[in-house]
Amino acid sequence: MKNYNKYARSYFMPPKTSMKWMEKEYVTKAPKWCSVDLRDGNQALIVPMNLAEKLEYFQLLVDLGFKEIEVGFPAASETEFTFLRTLIEQDLIPADVTVQVLTQSREHIIRKTFDALQGVRKAVVHLYNSTSVAQREQVFKKSKEEIIQIAVSGAELLTSCAAETEGDFTFQYSPESFTGTEIDFALDICNQVLDVWKPGVDNEVIINLPATVSLSMPHVYASQIEYMSEHLKYREHVILSIHPHNDRGTGVADAELGMLAGADRVEGTLFGNGERTGNVDIVTLALNLYSHGIDPELNFERIPDVLKVYERITKMKVPERHPYGGELVFTAFSGSHQDAIAKGIKWREDNAEPYWNVPYLLIDPTDIGREYEGDIIRINSQSGKGGIAYILEQTYGLDLPIQMRESFGYRVKSISDHLHKELGSAEIYTIFEQEYINLNKPIQFIDYSFKSGEQFETMIEVKKDGVIHEFTGIGNGRLDAISQVIQSQLNISYSNLLYKEHALGTGSDSKAVSYVGITNESGTIYWGCGIDVDIMTSSIKALFSAVNKLILDQ
Amino acid sequence: MKNYNKYARSYFMPPKTSMKWMEKEYVTKAPKWCSVDLRDGNQALIVPMNLAEKLEYFQLLVDLGFKEIEVGFPAASETEFTFLRTLIEQDLIPADVTVQVLTQSREHIIRKTFDALQGVRKAVVHLYNSTSVAQREQVFKKSKEEIIQIAVSGAELLTSCAAETEGDFTFQYSPESFTGTEIDFALDICNQVLDVWKPGVDNEVIINLPATVSLSMPHVYASQIEYMSEHLKYREHVILSIHPHNDRGTGVADAELGMLAGADRVEGTLFGNGERTGNVDIVTLALNLYSHGIDPELNFERIPDVLKVYERITKMKVPERHPYGGELVFTAFSGSHQDAIAKGIKWREDNAEPYWNVPYLLIDPTDIGREYEGDIIRINSQSGKGGIAYILEQTYGLDLPIQMRESFGYRVKSISDHLHKELGSAEIYTIFEQEYINLNKPIQFIDYSFKSGEQFETMIEVKKDGVIHEFTGIGNGRLDAISQVIQSQLNISYSNLLYKEHALGTGSDSKAVSYVGITNESGTIYWGCGIDVDIMTSSIKALFSAVNKLILDQ
Repeated sequence: MKNYNKYARSYFMPPKTSMKWMEKEYVTKAPKWCSVDLRDGNQALIVPMNLAEKLEYFQLLVDLGFKEIEVGFPAASETEFTFLRTLIEQDLIPADVTVQVLTQSREHIIRKTFDALQGVRKAVVHLYNSTSVAQREQVFKKSKEEIIQIAVSGAELLTSCAAETEGDFTFQYSPESFTGTEIDFALDICNQVLDVWKPGVDNEVIINLPATVSLSMPHVYASQIEYMSEHLKYREHVILSIHPHNDRGTGVADAELGMLAGADRVEGTLFGNGERTGNVDIVTLALNLYSHGIDPELNFERIPDVLKVYERITKMKVPERHPYGGELVFTAFSGSHQDAIAKGIKWREDNAEPYWNVPYLLIDPTDIGREYEGDIIRINSQSGKGGIAYILEQTYGLDLPIQMRESFGYRVKSISDHLHKELGSAEIYTIFEQEYINLNKPIQFIDYSFKSGEQFETMIEVKKDGVIHEFTGIGNGRLDAISQVIQSQLNISYSNLLYKEHALGTGSDSKAVSYVGITNESGTIYWGCGIDVDIMTSSIKALFSAVNKLILDQ
Repeated sequence: MKNYNKYARSYFMPPKTSMKWMEKEYVTKAPKWCSVDLRDGNQALIVPMNLAEKLEYFQLLVDLGFKEIEVGFPAASETEFTFLRTLIEQDLIPADVTVQVLTQSREHIIRKTFDALQGVRKAVVHLYNSTSVAQREQVFKKSKEEIIQIAVSGAELLTSCAAETEGDFTFQYSPESFTGTEIDFALDICNQVLDVWKPGVDNEVIINLPATVSLSMPHVYASQIEYMSEHLKYREHVILSIHPHNDRGTGVADAELGMLAGADRVEGTLFGNGERTGNVDIVTLALNLYSHGIDPELNFERIPDVLKVYERITKMKVPERHPYGGELVFTAFSGSHQDAIAKGIKWREDNAEPYWNVPYLLIDPTDIGREYEGDIIRINSQSGKGGIAYILEQTYGLDLPIQMRESFGYRVKSISDHLHKELGSAEIYTIFEQEYINLNKPIQFIDYSFKSGEQFETMIEVKKDGVIHEFTGIGNGRLDAISQVIQSQLNISYSNLLYKEHALGTGSDSKAVSYVGITNESGTIYWGCGIDVDIMTSSIKALFSAVNKLILDQ
């Protein structure tokens, strides 16, 4: 690409690299979560939410366990003002939930924001101004001192407005475009704001460091966070918050390394909705913690229900491959993956594994309301015997013999390949039924009887070419006796009879299913399956099915 | 969530933490890229590609500049076998492109793989077996020694098959499920395979370390890669490759930190297609390098064209917020963002900025074939005057006065809010036209003439209530003279006439556009716009438009 020289790294390293965070291996505790779905998320929608949608979305966030929810920029639009007033006046904010509102550092906007907050139980008032080199030069055309003055005067006005307004207020400051700001300037402006607010035991203040645009690799962002964390004044009374975006596809990593580096709080959205590439996805962050055995302090046990509300209100679709929530993220089409997953789930049933460790599945999909069937093993031309057999077993209770799985697997893959489409469970069962179960052409089995002595003596009745025949024969077992009849009196030649049977269903209406494999002279195995309420009948039907397949292949 | 205790971290740390990579700030050179779209990507599609689609996709990858392309698992399906044979026999592989094929370590599969490769110019033969604790115990039920034996015997067979097959072969080994493997066992098995292949100057070998399932935070993966990089035998002749997946939403970070930690090569796919959450997205990795001023050695200058082919063949949609490729990733709906972007683009036109630094835009969208119009500034109820004015200027050439922008901005936002939908450029122009341009009710301007002396003397003709009137008046300028007539003879009271005009279009058919603002007694400004081939007429029409708005508001 010819233009790469047009770019340089426009972020700023700390004066010395901070890498203590690197010694930590994982995040050991959930951060304070703040949802910005209703502000940063909403403002990035093609069709922003109306009042009714905002109220429903707010309730969803409350139900998921969010304790801090940014509800908008009430001075910026009538809808957002009305939304906040509705939450307050209809008492829709639970006692343990704090709403947060955003305001620019302009007097009439701050005053209107506090008008909107009148009578709220408690709220975070989130003040921001833009601090990056690009914004100072190109947009505001102001010096560093003037930019600091914007922040400080806004902070002062927050203090005085809060004193005049009913409610319990926490202050938050964001040096917007932090990632494009010289790090010591960002530190300076934050510390000057903190000097106004004077955080203390009963007056915690939130400093939020947004990757408004993600400009660096994630370890650089973490170093920046660590540097800020170590140099902010009043640090023990400051809640250090981060607000990553996903421009470089590293929003989750920025947040996770940022937490190691000292962030106490994370602002993000469900499924990463938000400006441009979106905010960091809190669903992924929370379930990443969960997958490491850490309580995420949010409840995503019913992801499919969350998706439904989210997709309806935002009119965005959660992508198929989006971690945890996407349609395909627990799905294996590949044969070897299906086989390993099926074996792993079986292993887990049979062994007292303390921890989840099924191959190819980061977490147990059922923990978040996903289902094994339909979600995990799906069948196309890339699939294998293990997955196909798994579908038949899980959905239809058919536990095929190992060798039969291979034969049936090739058949199904080939059909999917030729049809050029995925095959659903029902289609797979139909193929199995047509290919194997109770086949009665060219020979139709009708009835049998036995006399048992030293050996088993059988009489069987079959129909062939429209004519009913009765044959008798002797064998070491019942099925062997019938097999002798077939070989000697119907003149069908085969060897090495393989046999397996099991019950199908439970209780008084259960049936028996039998599988029979026979080998012809050139070594090809032909399989049949019989299903019947009578176990003997099922095995005879399986044998005749296999025999019929052999005959038809000649 | 109640079940979090069911999980533990199932990855393995190196014996000592490796963090030299942390001292590097960014990736300074593109890695060797290997596309696995046609293998890992294809096997994860609901409907895998047919032969024609594979051939077209292969050509796309070649056109984008990929020099290594994994084309499938030829022993696993007829389609993949046929695809490779077609590439070879129809000579579709450019001389500088190497195809790669995957094979399990099983004799008949390896032999069939080399059958498929017969006559290829050059190829990477990629051998893998699964090495993780979970796979060894649950799936293969084999000891570490037996697992090593699988790898070593496969490696030996590769050597002998390669000697018997026409073509120039490079060997690659992957300890599949590397991230769930004890790190020293992974090192041991790789080194034993290397001992078979004995890499040297003319025999480079690829060792590929897949995050088959991403199990750890990205800095842990980087430590694992650094440890492997430092302890692999024959390291100077080993190409260290990584193959991240995106289960934890950190595939890009894993790849980027992995490169700092020593990886020379990255396997991934376009837009992150692949098993479950997908492989790492090479588009994002490449353009992240580009955004840092590094040549990505791939060409994504026409992303929209890539998307078209990708989406048609994979039947997957690239999500709206997917970095670089998604529909919304350069879009600002928010007023303050639009304003900053518009100012930044203007700044860039006016100043000789050496590097790209427009606020909110990580890269110049036009560098990858995206367009400013339609892609960047889109208008809904969250938008602001800056963005709305930008649309009028960019698309219709109307450069509104600053104060008029605010007034029109509120109007457009309010319409979008009430209609509950996004407004396109044409809709915005229509609103502007209906609200401001050449308004002729209740007073219709018909004609004018001037005599100029010390002052300007005018005669104007207007129609009001169906009656044509002629008025004369005097002023210090032409427009002032007409304004005097309106105030004195039509009895309309206003003050503080604001005026701006500019040409609309270029060349002989260009028109003039004028904007006039007038202020009523209570301080409200009313704006009008006039467009005409004659500049004087345009300014008079603008004045009458403003006057008509004032009258109608009384």
